[in-house]
Amino acid sequence: MTIKRRKVSVIGGGFTGATTALMIAQKELADVVLVDIPDMEDPTKGKALDMLEASPVQGFDAKITGTADYKDTEGSDLVIITAGIARKPGMSRDDLVSTNAKIMKSVTKEIVKYSPDTFILVLTNPVDAMTYTVFKESGFPKSRVIGQSGVLDTARFRTFVAEELNLSVKDITGFVLGGHGDDMVPLIRYSFAGGIPLEKLISKERLNEIVARTRTGGGEIVNLLGNGSAYYAPAASLTVMAEAILKDQRRVLPSIAYLEGEYGYSDIYLGVPTIIGGNGLEEIIELDLLEDEKAALDKSAESVKNVLEVLNK
Amino acid sequence: MTIKRRKVSVIGGGFTGATTALMIAQKELADVVLVDIPDMEDPTKGKALDMLEASPVQGFDAKITGTADYKDTEGSDLVIITAGIARKPGMSRDDLVSTNAKIMKSVTKEIVKYSPDTFILVLTNPVDAMTYTVFKESGFPKSRVIGQSGVLDTARFRTFVAEELNLSVKDITGFVLGGHGDDMVPLIRYSFAGGIPLEKLISKERLNEIVARTRTGGGEIVNLLGNGSAYYAPAASLTVMAEAILKDQRRVLPSIAYLEGEYGYSDIYLGVPTIIGGNGLEEIIELDLLEDEKAALDKSAESVKNVLEVLNK
Amino acid sequence: MTIKRRKVSVIGGGFTGATTALMIAQKELADVVLVDIPDMEDPTKGKALDMLEASPVQGFDAKITGTADYKDTEGSDLVIITAGIARKPGMSRDDLVSTNAKIMKSVTKEIVKYSPDTFILVLTNPVDAMTYTVFKESGFPKSRVIGQSGVLDTARFRTFVAEELNLSVKDITGFVLGGHGDDMVPLIRYSFAGGIPLEKLISKERLNEIVARTRTGGGEIVNLLGNGSAYYAPAASLTVMAEAILKDQRRVLPSIAYLEGEYGYSDIYLGVPTIIGGNGLEEIIELDLLEDEKAALDKSAESVKNVLEVLNK
Amino acid sequence: MTIKRRKVSVIGGGFTGATTALMIAQKELADVVLVDIPDMEDPTKGKALDMLEASPVQGFDAKITGTADYKDTEGSDLVIITAGIARKPGMSRDDLVSTNAKIMKSVTKEIVKYSPDTFILVLTNPVDAMTYTVFKESGFPKSRVIGQSGVLDTARFRTFVAEELNLSVKDITGFVLGGHGDDMVPLIRYSFAGGIPLEKLISKERLNEIVARTRTGGGEIVNLLGNGSAYYAPAASLTVMAEAILKDQRRVLPSIAYLEGEYGYSDIYLGVPTIIGGNGLEEIIELDLLEDEKAALDKSAESVKNVLEVLNK
Repeated sequence: MTIKRRKVSVIGGGFTGATTALMIAQKELADVVLVDIPDMEDPTKGKALDMLEASPVQGFDAKITGTADYKDTEGSDLVIITAGIARKPGMSRDDLVSTNAKIMKSVTKEIVKYSPDTFILVLTNPVDAMTYTVFKESGFPKSRVIGQSGVLDTARFRTFVAEELNLSVKDITGFVLGGHGDDMVPLIRYSFAGGIPLEKLISKERLNEIVARTRTGGGEIVNLLGNGSAYYAPAASLTVMAEAILKDQRRVLPSIAYLEGEYGYSDIYLGVPTIIGGNGLEEIIELDLLEDEKAALDKSAESVKNVLEVLNK
Repeated sequence: MTIKRRKVSVIGGGFTGATTALMIAQKELADVVLVDIPDMEDPTKGKALDMLEASPVQGFDAKITGTADYKDTEGSDLVIITAGIARKPGMSRDDLVSTNAKIMKSVTKEIVKYSPDTFILVLTNPVDAMTYTVFKESGFPKSRVIGQSGVLDTARFRTFVAEELNLSVKDITGFVLGGHGDDMVPLIRYSFAGGIPLEKLISKERLNEIVARTRTGGGEIVNLLGNGSAYYAPAASLTVMAEAILKDQRRVLPSIAYLEGEYGYSDIYLGVPTIIGGNGLEEIIELDLLEDEKAALDKSAESVKNVLEVLNK
Repeated sequence: MTIKRRKVSVIGGGFTGATTALMIAQKELADVVLVDIPDMEDPTKGKALDMLEASPVQGFDAKITGTADYKDTEGSDLVIITAGIARKPGMSRDDLVSTNAKIMKSVTKEIVKYSPDTFILVLTNPVDAMTYTVFKESGFPKSRVIGQSGVLDTARFRTFVAEELNLSVKDITGFVLGGHGDDMVPLIRYSFAGGIPLEKLISKERLNEIVARTRTGGGEIVNLLGNGSAYYAPAASLTVMAEAILKDQRRVLPSIAYLEGEYGYSDIYLGVPTIIGGNGLEEIIELDLLEDEKAALDKSAESVKNVLEVLNK
Repeated sequence: MTIKRRKVSVIGGGFTGATTALMIAQKELADVVLVDIPDMEDPTKGKALDMLEASPVQGFDAKITGTADYKDTEGSDLVIITAGIARKPGMSRDDLVSTNAKIMKSVTKEIVKYSPDTFILVLTNPVDAMTYTVFKESGFPKSRVIGQSGVLDTARFRTFVAEELNLSVKDITGFVLGGHGDDMVPLIRYSFAGGIPLEKLISKERLNEIVARTRTGGGEIVNLLGNGSAYYAPAASLTVMAEAILKDQRRVLPSIAYLEGEYGYSDIYLGVPTIIGGNGLEEIIELDLLEDEKAALDKSAESVKNVLEVLNK
């Protein structure tokens, strides 16, 4: 018998991809291969080497490699897709969707070729549609293709609540359904500080403001940075999902999951509460929704479907 | 009695400063204030907020703030200076030195104003001269002004040796004296794999290659990135020095220290083995050097003096 | 300026005290002094030395000292009391109470003598009355004398729920009020798996069984061990409370707190939701209780008062 | 594909076994099965349950089970043997050896039956002979049967040196060959503080005292405890070896290894520098020894052979 270290490939060597690689290595979850396009091969190698050189000081053992050759991803246990373009001024949403969908397809082909048994996590926006695209292209079972959005949305929500109440982030929980950002459906009644419903600790008005800030949390960072978008919290969110799979933790995390009748939707990827473990997405948890929650989720699903229609054109 | 969390301010919100802030927060060493110039206030706030939003997922409690106002650094236990410009094409070394020295002086004034009892770690290049500048400007005792270069140089050396021998980085140690980069004086006879002298495990020729690669380790990353320089390993190096002070660990680390006769030099900052703890730089360890080592160190000191002369002009 | 490592003294060098010392050292929260009676001086020194010898391998820096001399506790930031006898066959509850109260008084005198500004955490049973005794004897403000029971009770509850649902313990929360063990008042409606109310995931019947098992969780371990009582989970619980104070985390944790009107009680120590940070017990969170919850809490308070009456005799 | 958590079985539910189980779980290296004899089934279950109840508070995900049924060890990735009796007053060394050898044989049979592909780490004393016994009984290749002694011996040495120099244990390294305790052959010339040879920092006389204390380090703890022997540092030592295998780290660690000509010995288990990784004992590092070192190692080997002869009788 030989025990081999796990292997994770991160597609896209930008800030989010690189930070994800760092965080996975810091936790010694796996060796990491950071992949970007041939034009970016050298910078990707540079980032990987720089991280590797941090390892003796940070005290972690993990090989980190930068590459433009998918052959180096061979035999990955998990692949994380952060590749894709961001919406630029003057670009229509449809253009964004179709460009990123093309990227998803070509990336997925390569992933499947070299790691036919791997799990795939998708971050690229619009994440519901992009996860769907990867799912279809891969031919993988739905348990092995999962999108990230809710972990990040709740992380932002938890941060704002911890700040509001001046409490440890460790004791704040949040809960969202639906899509990312504007389409997010927060379930305040399932959000707590040390188990205490937030509604007992924060006024309805302030809670609404915090929800509104969470919805636009990505945009808030974009506006501040001026040039680029958030990467620390997205990378941390991907890492916690990766850890749940690689350590078979069966964590309860919100994921972009493929629905087959759950919550009344089918053939769509949508944000729902799930159990993530060594089999990937192991279960979808179905909750009874209040009328307004269901309405908001319907709106969110509608929005995803519209994007999918763009794709099918 | 009240127990207050430690406070660290990081001057310079670029990649190195931001990554240092992240790593200090991840280890829950302190709350972190990330400072940059007014023009960069918003991006600095954006990075700080993005990191803070990673905290619920990564599980750390630390306030991280971005600012352009030094008032926010008030009462810091430790300040880390990463600010400064990088050498641009066509810029003479003397221009680089005098520009960064000006930055050091203005930054130090602000640090001292708001945190007269703080420790200061300096990363800005040329680090020996910049640490000297901060020391003089601050009026602080030498134990409270320390430069970083040897931790990073040995980290790179250890990485290359671990790769060469296919061994855990945890078991590789390295040892350098003198300046950063070209002026580095590696002491191979004090470098080991699991306690075994490297000379018994690696041929002299390969060791020379590894030393040469270490010397130009910063340049290797610069060349690969194409646009910018290393930040992961530098940030990790600063973090380990910060941890040694904040946790009063009395670690044996190579530092840029103010010499008063040690190794035969005076009124100069130079890389030597030191003990870092709750009093900052607590001791300089003096070693007997071989003739060629002493010669190399002389050359390194000469090089630092030349830079200082530029400054005194 | 000098940064000194924090100092924690643990009174009682038995399994719980020793395990607490280990866990505090593992997290590098402080140097630790483990104190026991003169008869146990050597074994206490032995345990401390054995732990210290684990530190190079586990990679933590913390001095751990065993002693029978309270002078060694001088200047502690935090003192944790685990000393006391367990109820032996044939011993009446009143005898247990009065014996442990005597121990609390003598221990507190010594603590106060050498660390007049310290925080005190109490574990000794019956914990409500013993914390009260330490509070009165110390003359400390109520914010600096806190008892542990709810963290342990919820830890057991969370363990059983995680097992029942086959989910990560990280995502299960629990909530208790009132006394330890039999007097525990669980608030199931504030207990969740990934934010989802347990009542939606587990049948009422099974939940009742889990609550019943939690109530007798200490006894279950006593029965299995045959000789002695639980120490791993109690030590972990003390450590998390210590960490909240030493890192000024403002965590929401159930504590045995001194009440002055909260929940309708006065001059009594009782288990309530609190905020623990760098000022010790910073706040008591008052919740609206359902009628049956209030009745159960009344019963719990009654039980504590009965013990206090024994003490006043 | 499914990712399954690693599984480690620890044979012997005494203090060392239980502490090892805790440390492996704390690091989330694997699920742990703690095994003892039927008479100790309940206490073993009690310890396992108590540890499990610490997991929500310490924040680790690992199933910990106590059992007396080897069936529960089925499919272990690694088995750690801590079982065996300690030498009692009046017991001859030969009696100790033959009793523990019997235990090793019966334990090994069960291990092999349920986990024919597992790695085995042995701690039971006299460890050289007991590892040899397990090796022969198992029929496993030598790479999969490894004894622990040098990690513990160097941990003690490092602790004493760190104390002597008042330095962080993180920067002290030590190096031993040969047997455990009295038969230990320390290589001071390969022992360092921050890479600096100890001989430059500590007088020869004090170093000899520290070596002498290390040799009798186990006895020092036995004498202090009065009743029992060390378990914290032994457990930490086993854990670091387990981690090296389970995370495929290729660490340089001293191990009790089966020699086939290395250092001039054959068909014997002896303490030598090794590389431990995902293939278990991957390499033995051969060093040139000084005359007195070789003489000491010969004496150590002789001592092991004498014990083996007792066994063969």
